[in-house]
Amino acid sequence: MWIITEKTFDPISQHHKETIFTIGNGYLSTRGTLEEGYPGEHRATFVHGVFDDVPVVFTELANAPDWLLLTVLINGERFSLKSGKVLDYQRELNLRTGLLTRHVCWQSPSGHISTLKFERFASLHNQHLLALRCQVTPEFNGEVEIRTALNGNTDNEGFTHWDWVEQNRENQDTLYLINRTRKTGIKLALAIRLLGIDSLQPDYWDVENVPTFRQVFQAGCGETVTITKFVGIATSRDAEVPQALAIEAITKSQNWDIALKENEQAWEQEWERCEVSIEGDDEAQIAIRFNLFQLLIAAPRHDYRVNIGAKTLSGFGYRGHAFWDTEIFMLPVFTYTAPHIARNLLDYRYLTLPAARQKAHQAGYEGAFYAWESAATGEEVTPTWVPDFHDRKKLTRVWTGDLAIHISADIAYGIWQYWLATGDDNWLAERGIEIMLETAKFYVSRAEWQADKDIYTYCDVIGPDEYHDHVNNNTYTNRLAQWNILTALQILDWLREKYPQKTTKLTQQLNLTPELLANWRKVAEKILLNKHPNGLFEQFDGFFALKDVNLADYEPRSKSMHEIFGIEAANHYQAIKQPDVLMLQYLLREEYNDQEIRVNYDYYTPRTDHSYGSSLGPSIQSVVASMMGEVDVAYEHFILAARADLRDIRGNAGDGIHAASAGGTWQALVFGFGGLKVGSHGWSTHARLPQHWKSLSFRFFYRGQLQKVVIKPEDLR
Amino acid sequence: MWIITEKTFDPISQHHKETIFTIGNGYLSTRGTLEEGYPGEHRATFVHGVFDDVPVVFTELANAPDWLLLTVLINGERFSLKSGKVLDYQRELNLRTGLLTRHVCWQSPSGHISTLKFERFASLHNQHLLALRCQVTPEFNGEVEIRTALNGNTDNEGFTHWDWVEQNRENQDTLYLINRTRKTGIKLALAIRLLGIDSLQPDYWDVENVPTFRQVFQAGCGETVTITKFVGIATSRDAEVPQALAIEAITKSQNWDIALKENEQAWEQEWERCEVSIEGDDEAQIAIRFNLFQLLIAAPRHDYRVNIGAKTLSGFGYRGHAFWDTEIFMLPVFTYTAPHIARNLLDYRYLTLPAARQKAHQAGYEGAFYAWESAATGEEVTPTWVPDFHDRKKLTRVWTGDLAIHISADIAYGIWQYWLATGDDNWLAERGIEIMLETAKFYVSRAEWQADKDIYTYCDVIGPDEYHDHVNNNTYTNRLAQWNILTALQILDWLREKYPQKTTKLTQQLNLTPELLANWRKVAEKILLNKHPNGLFEQFDGFFALKDVNLADYEPRSKSMHEIFGIEAANHYQAIKQPDVLMLQYLLREEYNDQEIRVNYDYYTPRTDHSYGSSLGPSIQSVVASMMGEVDVAYEHFILAARADLRDIRGNAGDGIHAASAGGTWQALVFGFGGLKVGSHGWSTHARLPQHWKSLSFRFFYRGQLQKVVIKPEDLR
Repeated sequence: MWIITEKTFDPISQHHKETIFTIGNGYLSTRGTLEEGYPGEHRATFVHGVFDDVPVVFTELANAPDWLLLTVLINGERFSLKSGKVLDYQRELNLRTGLLTRHVCWQSPSGHISTLKFERFASLHNQHLLALRCQVTPEFNGEVEIRTALNGNTDNEGFTHWDWVEQNRENQDTLYLINRTRKTGIKLALAIRLLGIDSLQPDYWDVENVPTFRQVFQAGCGETVTITKFVGIATSRDAEVPQALAIEAITKSQNWDIALKENEQAWEQEWERCEVSIEGDDEAQIAIRFNLFQLLIAAPRHDYRVNIGAKTLSGFGYRGHAFWDTEIFMLPVFTYTAPHIARNLLDYRYLTLPAARQKAHQAGYEGAFYAWESAATGEEVTPTWVPDFHDRKKLTRVWTGDLAIHISADIAYGIWQYWLATGDDNWLAERGIEIMLETAKFYVSRAEWQADKDIYTYCDVIGPDEYHDHVNNNTYTNRLAQWNILTALQILDWLREKYPQKTTKLTQQLNLTPELLANWRKVAEKILLNKHPNGLFEQFDGFFALKDVNLADYEPRSKSMHEIFGIEAANHYQAIKQPDVLMLQYLLREEYNDQEIRVNYDYYTPRTDHSYGSSLGPSIQSVVASMMGEVDVAYEHFILAARADLRDIRGNAGDGIHAASAGGTWQALVFGFGGLKVGSHGWSTHARLPQHWKSLSFRFFYRGQLQKVVIKPEDLR
Repeated sequence: MWIITEKTFDPISQHHKETIFTIGNGYLSTRGTLEEGYPGEHRATFVHGVFDDVPVVFTELANAPDWLLLTVLINGERFSLKSGKVLDYQRELNLRTGLLTRHVCWQSPSGHISTLKFERFASLHNQHLLALRCQVTPEFNGEVEIRTALNGNTDNEGFTHWDWVEQNRENQDTLYLINRTRKTGIKLALAIRLLGIDSLQPDYWDVENVPTFRQVFQAGCGETVTITKFVGIATSRDAEVPQALAIEAITKSQNWDIALKENEQAWEQEWERCEVSIEGDDEAQIAIRFNLFQLLIAAPRHDYRVNIGAKTLSGFGYRGHAFWDTEIFMLPVFTYTAPHIARNLLDYRYLTLPAARQKAHQAGYEGAFYAWESAATGEEVTPTWVPDFHDRKKLTRVWTGDLAIHISADIAYGIWQYWLATGDDNWLAERGIEIMLETAKFYVSRAEWQADKDIYTYCDVIGPDEYHDHVNNNTYTNRLAQWNILTALQILDWLREKYPQKTTKLTQQLNLTPELLANWRKVAEKILLNKHPNGLFEQFDGFFALKDVNLADYEPRSKSMHEIFGIEAANHYQAIKQPDVLMLQYLLREEYNDQEIRVNYDYYTPRTDHSYGSSLGPSIQSVVASMMGEVDVAYEHFILAARADLRDIRGNAGDGIHAASAGGTWQALVFGFGGLKVGSHGWSTHARLPQHWKSLSFRFFYRGQLQKVVIKPEDLR
């Protein structure tokens, strides 16, 4: 259960499949487009950190110069799935090794038949190495011409980011191309080395921005022609002379077999840490591996200056911007299975602390107010105005960048969970605590005191449920802000005990006097929480007074309730995009007993737009359903999250992987079905498996030690 | 005085010079970039009517695939002004023939010296033919390699419009490339034919979207290598199979000399019609020819589905959109010197009448409300919201598309002047009158009746002076609206007499009953005109109550008053962007006596931002100064308009030619200094020449006959 297979090529679903067949290595990802191209394709390679300016959304990952390009002419006829006849076709992505393979048996327009095999991988062993192999076997005596190129003429759905800088043929079989982003000035070098043409002399076509090698082979009937294209890639973010690094990568690797072997070994170590297996449910098994694979290929291993975008590196959606999706949905996967990656992701938040401070300052607050959408610098890059497609005189204001203040606490939460699981005291003391104190400071300054009631409130915010904006006292926001302040104080106490010198330095630097900290506690304790006596939380002030709505009445539907009601009107209904209150109860699950969760679960579940609301919803809904013992329901939501991209449930998988859903799927499995609980003194599981599962195994690190859990139904009876 | 010369190449001014050295033939224009390229260049070819969609500004002329590309390697060293040493340099644009020539004596980095000569023109004889010749003379025995290509990888300042469709080598010396605009689906074919390599066999580099010929020559010291590149161009707007038309163009022409000769003959006819000569003022002489040349190369000769953009076809500014600049500034040049072109431009307005009707309808009015910015269809394409560069949370609403209602009357005025000068009764009866009646209908429906005063007003408009928006009863707008209604009625009377059948059909079609027309007259006569007893017009309601300002107090300055005051605040001052009232008096100059003009001239002149206001202002200011007998002052404004682009006075000539200024320059000469008056029964001149001028000659058509006017100071004494 490691292979994702496609049996026919259908242009209708090509964008979806490009996302599915994305390969990568944590440094870059390349969408699963065809080497030779196909009309209408969304061909793209995204390299971490290579952002460039763009109108409206400010900055985006620049679609890198294309390394894939390889054209085959057989007896002068150009191979393409668009011409001739495809007699046989199969594409396979091996999740265990990251190798993507395509077999095609093709009849040319003039009737000549050949078999072609394409293989590619992005080396996990050497992140600067990409490899591509093409084998052509004609069923006749003829000429096979292979053109391999680099192409700097790429764009981001119409927007060009690159200026050509330089290209050169280094020697007989090696060439390179350098481009530079237009605004941010990042240089990107690609280098090709051709293998398998020992005695041959490829032509070099020195066309600006498309340097091309051309090799003609004479092949006999049934004889296979093989060409291997090693591509090195590096940017000025990695080295001053990126082409040197790119050339080094392709020079080091002796041949295809060795490079592939090294890559496989690296992948073996990867799966050793995070392997999940489910017996008795093939779809769930392949889906969880697929979701993990997608997270793994997007996760920066050697770079702490970048984060993971909401669509990973697999598509144009959300332009590579990182959201709370990282800390709340993806980070736990890394915290538990790859703490070194989790630390990189949190280091990024530490590096962008100055930008978060500036955002707070500009909004009139203290401390750190993190960007809702974050890119190279941590500056807020949420678009503020987007065009209205119905009326060109109108624009819609996007408010999340101003009002979704929960992002700062989400990050603090991610830090705390990282510490809990890893026990990485040093990192907490050196970096994490500073973030937590600064976000706490922000929440204290952002709180508004209502003198008549002696409470602190957070007005005009957006919570996780984005169907309602400009709300007051969103429970999720208020409680996490409170949690952030109190936890920061608690960790400061711990720090004071364990690292007294560091504490003195830090409190001076952040100007944290005892009086001030005492005030923090006072504010935190008086933050309004809309909790009713029976334990039911009101999602925000006045939510219960909104028009109630039975979502079942709208079934079947193929649109979100947001679209059905309209953006403005959706504010007036008790229909929610995702389980806002349940999300809070999931995060702080130790604080609520079953009855307190049940009353909220029963209230909010029927009011949640599970099918077309947020893709972040189903996984959390699944965990909470598991917690409520409703395993069948939990499975329904779990599988919805698990197959979100594989089955393109929302119709937009072509824009890239739903990374939060991918991370949430793992959480639904481990924390939901597995019932894993982790505390400062150890861990336990309280599993509930779907009926048809024969076993569930997963792995995770606890305090540096790899734990292996195997759960079988018979053990639970 | 026909040659624009550049003696050194300075990268600092390269964008300015690219605009100045633009060549074209009324079908397309190509900016004066270097064949071999230069970093940071704004390389562009714009073809009339080839619009494609783009965010924010809706549609723009797509920068066509590049036909210029030609690279020279001398003994393996690539020729570039960026490397080696430029020992001698000269660029010349011959305004008489449209031939652009560049001589470079270049020392390569390794010290080899060669002389290179590049020549190019866009044939005025065959609009689908472009020609480029390159001659290389090394001062040593060596190898000269010339690569000639087409390049489909072009963009509009970061936005790409093209998809590759097809390319092919037709035969030994001929290849073609087809691209298609992404949204509008216009195919554009380019074809190369190489000449002058008779016995040689160029290599063909079949790189997608950059098909390239490569030819290596062995040249002896002092021997000249010559290559001629004929390029054919056509689009699916011209023919179903555009590549056939493109190939026909390059096949027809036998060689460089013949093609050049045919082009020169076409240009001779052109200048025969519109030649202007000024003795005693070299700068004025070359400048007027330059301005005319720029208009001539942008003027559609064989296409009535297009108009001329505010920046002609010479730059990215205003995206190829047409404004009132056409009818009020450029059209008179064509009406008087090339009536067939004027008719094409007015036919475009007839073709876009449905869009103007729709715009009126959508705004809640009747008749035809023309687009302030008009492109392929006549739909309104003025951007509605543009980003605020200081605060990314803000946007600025652009109101001209909604409120600059004078555009409809400007078009009606252009029609009337065309008729007056040409006597083209047939066109007026078939097309012009329909536009005039529909714009009249619009103004009647747009007028608001103020019952208490029994007047009709136009509230919430923008007049020519854009420093003030949302004004009421802009004098220019009100009077031209009135003029439009009354003139339409008058022409309808004429039509009824001359074409009774046509009249019946038209009035039925437009539903113009006698009662309705009587009401039109009633409305028109009651339109408010803010005229004071002494003849002074108030530019709009309340203008005289605004804060007065002495613009001299702000000198010296390098910014517009708009920038100095700020967009909002500028509304509160009596500082104007251009002479709004004087413009009206210029257009309807038969209606006002000298005293009536004088009082307005004296009032508004010191309140006009002549230096950094509208580039449309100086030429009109010059005509009115001439009318007032202030010839020295008239000359000052005239020369400001004349040199606007040549000297890059506003620093933005790199965005393209200021076409309105170019047209206005001619008007300042002919109607200002020349004092030409044209009526239905003949024409007269009342000249006043600047002191240093020895003569002024110009030509124009009156009722189909070419008139030649020569004015000498001695005749005026």
